Amino acid sequence: MDERKSLIGEYNFVAEPFCSDFTGHMSLSTLGNMLLNVAEFHASDRGFGIITINQGAHTWVLSRLAMEFDEMPRQTEPFTIQTWVENVYKLFTARNFAIVNKDNTPIGYARSVWAMIDLESRKPVDLLSVYSGGISEYVCDRDCPIDGPGKVKVVSTEPVREVSMLFSDIDINGHVNSIRYIDHILDLFPLDLYKEKRIKRFEIAYVNESYYGDTLAFYLDEKGEGEFHIEVKKKDSGEVICRSKVIFI
Amino acid sequence: MDERKSLIGEYNFVAEPFCSDFTGHMSLSTLGNMLLNVAEFHASDRGFGIITINQGAHTWVLSRLAMEFDEMPRQTEPFTIQTWVENVYKLFTARNFAIVNKDNTPIGYARSVWAMIDLESRKPVDLLSVYSGGISEYVCDRDCPIDGPGKVKVVSTEPVREVSMLFSDIDINGHVNSIRYIDHILDLFPLDLYKEKRIKRFEIAYVNESYYGDTLAFYLDEKGEGEFHIEVKKKDSGEVICRSKVIFI
Repeated sequence: MDERKSLIGEYNFVAEPFCSDFTGHMSLSTLGNMLLNVAEFHASDRGFGIITINQGAHTWVLSRLAMEFDEMPRQTEPFTIQTWVENVYKLFTARNFAIVNKDNTPIGYARSVWAMIDLESRKPVDLLSVYSGGISEYVCDRDCPIDGPGKVKVVSTEPVREVSMLFSDIDINGHVNSIRYIDHILDLFPLDLYKEKRIKRFEIAYVNESYYGDTLAFYLDEKGEGEFHIEVKKKDSGEVICRSKVIFI
Repeated sequence: MDERKSLIGEYNFVAEPFCSDFTGHMSLSTLGNMLLNVAEFHASDRGFGIITINQGAHTWVLSRLAMEFDEMPRQTEPFTIQTWVENVYKLFTARNFAIVNKDNTPIGYARSVWAMIDLESRKPVDLLSVYSGGISEYVCDRDCPIDGPGKVKVVSTEPVREVSMLFSDIDINGHVNSIRYIDHILDLFPLDLYKEKRIKRFEIAYVNESYYGDTLAFYLDEKGEGEFHIEVKKKDSGEVICRSKVIFI
């Protein structure tokens, strides 16, 4: 048996007709949700799912996510998401994904970085020692041929949009759902841009949590043809919540 | 073979951890999306899916949706959605749903009403004659023990919220996604209400389409303990887009 193969989780999906954007392709936030769900399935099967580690008063926190696509699955098309752990460090673990079409051709990849925190103290947990260091057993050396998340620096001082966080933004932990930020960021761009171009790469780094009732201010820099850098701050305090880079081609 | 059984489509799901609301239950809009997807799977298997009828220059339009729950699936719980056609009339067809938990106990039901329209003229198509009246062959007499959508009348003249329709609101037909209205309506209520109560019943009637860039105004009447009626209008023209009733218990 190929040991590496057993380290890679493989999950089959169909791009659902009512989860498509107006181009008929699966929406990026739907795919982002699937990646997080698949990460949880894979971790859960190996004893490190959220529900298991919650019992140890720990939880997973998504720190960074980068996704890059040659194409997005079209509605009704079957596709597969593969996922594996690339690395386990003291404070972070890197998990990668491949999105593979029905002809077994990769159409996209994603990289994610996670921390485990203590539910009480909100402090990071040492991943090399927690659960007897068992997470490290699942590291797999498969290649993920996209860049890791890069540095995002936004200089704009006037927000392009302000949005209040409401019921539909809030997840089970009481803070704004990681994927909802993606929707709000994609909503900064006019529909015409999506008609002319498609998103080649999307990355996001989560810096601080935001909560129900927070008003978030979105700052946007255009960094050249089709590349945008976004910073999201709490309107009141100016605290940075997340930073993102979107590349259209 | 039980002929009635073959008329009922049955689809298995797991409530995904990252599609839950802050109470740890599957969100209503996620379930609404699943109902629409299941409707499409069931219709498609019988030759009346959107992609098939698009080739005949027709499409399905959701006119009404009513959902009622004893409980919502909790995250990671498996559940099943059953669907069947209740009736086919000249201008409308009624499709019902049962949501069944892993012990085979119904935990909720839904009713939906659909029209088929001509993609060019946007006029309704006669469902009793189109495709040789074949849709009527799939009518099933299974009971659906919840009320159909009722009358909603809103008297408030001041909107409680105004929202601009952006990229993430738009579906493949270029108009606002039916389910996104549910999110926007549920966002009218404070998080505390969701902490104290849960939604027992949600219904929505779609009156007119809205599009990218439209600003929608939300009018809300409280009709007694936990019952709310909502009307959504285009801000500019005052045209009614949809009406909804939400009952919390």
